[in-house]
Amino acid sequence: MSGSVIIVLLGLLFNSIASQASPCSINGFPLVRNISDLPLDNYGRPGLSHVTLAGSVLHGMKEIEVWLQNFAPGSCTPIHRHSCEEVFVVLRGNGTLYLAAESHGKYPGTPQAYPIFGNSTFAIPVNDAHQVCNTHNLEDLQMLVVISRPPAKVFIYEDWLMPHTAAKLKFPYYWDEPCIQSSVKDEL
Amino acid sequence: MSGSVIIVLLGLLFNSIASQASPCSINGFPLVRNISDLPLDNYGRPGLSHVTLAGSVLHGMKEIEVWLQNFAPGSCTPIHRHSCEEVFVVLRGNGTLYLAAESHGKYPGTPQAYPIFGNSTFAIPVNDAHQVCNTHNLEDLQMLVVISRPPAKVFIYEDWLMPHTAAKLKFPYYWDEPCIQSSVKDEL
Ligand SMILES: [Zn+2]
Ligand SMILES: [Zn+2]
Repeated sequence: MSGSVIIVLLGLLFNSIASQASPCSINGFPLVRNISDLPLDNYGRPGLSHVTLAGSVLHGMKEIEVWLQNFAPGSCTPIHRHSCEEVFVVLRGNGTLYLAAESHGKYPGTPQAYPIFGNSTFAIPVNDAHQVCNTHNLEDLQMLVVISRPPAKVFIYEDWLMPHTAAKLKFPYYWDEPCIQSSVKDEL
Repeated sequence: MSGSVIIVLLGLLFNSIASQASPCSINGFPLVRNISDLPLDNYGRPGLSHVTLAGSVLHGMKEIEVWLQNFAPGSCTPIHRHSCEEVFVVLRGNGTLYLAAESHGKYPGTPQAYPIFGNSTFAIPVNDAHQVCNTHNLEDLQMLVVISRPPAKVFIYEDWLMPHTAAKLKFPYYWDEPCIQSSVKDEL
């Protein structure tokens, strides 16, 4: 066997190991994925469990990204805004959507509170500051979340009175951080 | 009360009735929608029940559209292709994804068959011909479906040997047909 063939075979082998071992590969995923087999993590946010069902960084999606998220009682998303579209489908549980709609002022201000519940759905108006919380005492809140134009570019507010201009871009977002490539940053 | 005030009030009243009565209005929807309250129809396709959770024509979405679909045993989507991204999340049931992947020939040809099942997810490679069927004898197949760049522009094949060029554009798609505006057609 010539040296170059061995190098090619070693290359293939290494590639194959790398794509299976890496949690960041966009290759090596079966077309139909068992959701139970996908990596689940809280990405440093207590009460959250997040799975990327179809993602930009993980699976090469370009136009949509789909997450399955579970919020333990009392846990919330950050107060945040983004220019992409976002749709929630609540699979089970109960919670509250806080939305500072059409806030043309300097800061979001006191949000409106909307009850959310199993078998409900809602879309977030683009660029409106919002937060979703599990406000139930006992039950988890499980939701499918869809965003456009992944990966997520999210501006986070410390509170509802923080000026829009002071909200801080969190990019890469929590679950994209372990895997995102610097090339994606350049596209922002 | 002056005549003009009455006309304004009548106008408001009529507007309010119209926006509640029309199945095609993008106004008059509550922000958080109970999925059970949304219109459910088979749109002429036996075995299908379709609900648009967040749609372009119905709700003014521009970048993503989310459907909840139920397929009775034996029922299928058409064999079709589209240039938008599409993600399925199977909520319950069992079925088969038929996919003619990377078909650079004149027609899709014999597709590969992939089992799909509750708690599974898959994304359709852009422009690949595909079909999803409930191949179970007894149980319904329930799925959340997400597409990008709504409203859907779908090319339908009569069978897997039909040339790509003969596949017929179905626009507006089944559930958009009752409501789509001619202005949307112009954007195609
Ligand atoms: Zn959001
Ligand atoms: Zn499709």
